[in-house]
Amino acid sequence: MARIVMKFGGTSVADLDRIRNVARHVKREFDAGNEVAVVVSAMAGFTNQLVAWTREASALHDAREYDTVVAAGEQITSGLLAIVLQEMEVPARSWLGWQIPIRTDTAHGAARIKEIPSEILIDRFAQGQVAVIAGFQGIAPDNRIATLGRGGSDTSAVAVAAALKADRCDIYTDVDGVYTTDPRIVPKARRLERVAFEEMLEMASLGAKVLQVRSVELAMVHGVRTFVRSSFESPDAPQTGPGGLPPGTLICDEDEIVEKQIVTGIAFSRDEAKITLRRVADKPGVAASVFGRLSDAHVNVDVIVQNVSADGRYTDMTFTVPRTDFERSMEVIESAREEISYEEVTGSADVVKVSVIGIGMRSHAGVAAQMFKALAEKGINIQAITTSEIKISILIDAAYTELAVRTLHSLYGLDRQ
Amino acid sequence: MARIVMKFGGTSVADLDRIRNVARHVKREFDAGNEVAVVVSAMAGFTNQLVAWTREASALHDAREYDTVVAAGEQITSGLLAIVLQEMEVPARSWLGWQIPIRTDTAHGAARIKEIPSEILIDRFAQGQVAVIAGFQGIAPDNRIATLGRGGSDTSAVAVAAALKADRCDIYTDVDGVYTTDPRIVPKARRLERVAFEEMLEMASLGAKVLQVRSVELAMVHGVRTFVRSSFESPDAPQTGPGGLPPGTLICDEDEIVEKQIVTGIAFSRDEAKITLRRVADKPGVAASVFGRLSDAHVNVDVIVQNVSADGRYTDMTFTVPRTDFERSMEVIESAREEISYEEVTGSADVVKVSVIGIGMRSHAGVAAQMFKALAEKGINIQAITTSEIKISILIDAAYTELAVRTLHSLYGLDRQ
Repeated sequence: MARIVMKFGGTSVADLDRIRNVARHVKREFDAGNEVAVVVSAMAGFTNQLVAWTREASALHDAREYDTVVAAGEQITSGLLAIVLQEMEVPARSWLGWQIPIRTDTAHGAARIKEIPSEILIDRFAQGQVAVIAGFQGIAPDNRIATLGRGGSDTSAVAVAAALKADRCDIYTDVDGVYTTDPRIVPKARRLERVAFEEMLEMASLGAKVLQVRSVELAMVHGVRTFVRSSFESPDAPQTGPGGLPPGTLICDEDEIVEKQIVTGIAFSRDEAKITLRRVADKPGVAASVFGRLSDAHVNVDVIVQNVSADGRYTDMTFTVPRTDFERSMEVIESAREEISYEEVTGSADVVKVSVIGIGMRSHAGVAAQMFKALAEKGINIQAITTSEIKISILIDAAYTELAVRTLHSLYGLDRQ
Repeated sequence: MARIVMKFGGTSVADLDRIRNVARHVKREFDAGNEVAVVVSAMAGFTNQLVAWTREASALHDAREYDTVVAAGEQITSGLLAIVLQEMEVPARSWLGWQIPIRTDTAHGAARIKEIPSEILIDRFAQGQVAVIAGFQGIAPDNRIATLGRGGSDTSAVAVAAALKADRCDIYTDVDGVYTTDPRIVPKARRLERVAFEEMLEMASLGAKVLQVRSVELAMVHGVRTFVRSSFESPDAPQTGPGGLPPGTLICDEDEIVEKQIVTGIAFSRDEAKITLRRVADKPGVAASVFGRLSDAHVNVDVIVQNVSADGRYTDMTFTVPRTDFERSMEVIESAREEISYEEVTGSADVVKVSVIGIGMRSHAGVAAQMFKALAEKGINIQAITTSEIKISILIDAAYTELAVRTLHSLYGLDRQ
């Protein structure tokens, strides 16, 4: 017997037929003698409708009232799934954020979970009941519904799993696991059997959209073994894949990963734009001025490269911003020309960030050197580089995306045999 | 300054344009310096969609989960109206059943309100805030959402008005008041300026569908002055009609009605069917046997007429049942033929119940005699009669409905001049 949290997203509960399919997955785990909590999203498209109504009501809507409106979507799904489970003779009960209660902070619309008391759910497990929990919502200290922001149901699921000290948190999604890279770009991409939390965190923040970043952080902090698997797979399929685990990808502590790869995956993000300032005065305070201005405009700057100046007077500075903030960022920089004092500003959205990720890098030198050599051989020019302990990111011309990703995927031995 | 509860039904909040119209009515009362609580239904059609989903989930759905699903409709409207009011610079806050809390009994799906603490709302009034309350819902002792049954938002509004000791409860609807009879049948029907609670209760139970019966009962018990008026009227229309009241019909204590009419209104109900048992043994226990069987089958019997038997051995018995229960009732009676011991059972759904209502009847004799004479002159045969202190109901052939209603409407001086 295990204690399991299962999470199903909007496309998995889009209509009653799909909700019945979800119920069959839940019934399988329940019939196997497990204690089960299910976390559900709103039916696909429903949240969009609710959000559209709040916008139609007012462009500057109150976040508390927004939360009251949009939380209705998950409320509906939780009730419907409980009914379907009961129909299948699985004792089930729905739980809204305020009923458990899932306590959050006061940041309505993008709240963070502070505390989830587990007594009530554990008591229901003891009575043989499955808990169907409305994701994405909690209750703020002002006794009002608070939502967690888009994709928040992943976070709800992991937080519930942490509170319940669950053996596993299964995130059912429309892909069947985490891959070494995007299979649409690299047909030889392999599904990973296990990924370390740190690696997953880098992948999630670098554009692999399987899981919300915050949910991975939470899983890492609380050591929640999180499993990414397909909700469209038959509920009756065999539940034991390689390594004795169900088919999918386990995100876990690196101690659970016996054979550590040097490189686990190649991520890439097209949501980048590059801005270069030429002949900036090389003196203290300039960087603070540039990035202070952007920060005031709520632009998140990512990669920053500054060359050492040859004559000690001027330097060139390159950095990236989210592509959606590109034009606004250019305006900010241009309007601050006097203050920053540069000769020329240029920018381009034709760039892509490619990242090589792996916890094995910590103990292996030469990963970067290998990377640069392989890309040089293909004639790919590297425009900027940034690294962390378990990641090397480069900025290249967007036209070379596929070539670069495939080259690196082969280079680090990730291709499926 | 007054304290007012305003209630808007599903057609009044069917889309954002109509919600904005509702907000203008609210703003008018707020700007006039009143303390305002608004009770809203779900957007028209929304509850039907939610109910359909619960049925699709399971024919025998759990009432608690049904409540969780369907209460989402009013939750959405309350949030949206609060946003629209804020946009119009009216400070507003939404309130769900569990937040006030509106405490109900445990009868999920058809719960009754037990208690509404008023402190929190009165405190918000003092802060200059309008309360937008989700109708139709409360919270049961098991900490789960409970809904009040169809049309329950009227009841929510009156209950909130009672709890707040409001000066008035305005029920905005798609008609502009309570009429002496259905204007579609009698073009000369007049809108009533005032109706006594007891009269409205009779009218509501006899087929005038302006207000849910339970809400009228509640208004009567707590002495809530209830006002029926149109939500489609311009929010900028003059607010003073005859008698210094806004245009519409005031339902109030009879002490507030100075000139009491003998007859206030003519109601009729086509939802009736008649069943006659011929040559029933005239002995103790027979009536108990007939109506016991029907009661066991959850059939509500209304009018009952039993003739005195000529020979002391047999009698004829006629009674009415709701038309929807007609066939089932016939089966019940036929299957109990042995026990009841009758010669023949006949039935007809071609009947209508016409009722004459007025608190003035208490002090006036001859109302019934006048009625029977007028109908006889038109050749209308009366099949059964039942009376209360303020009402006379007759059962006639459905073909004579319009003739009978028009005749009685003129007879008692109700025609518009």
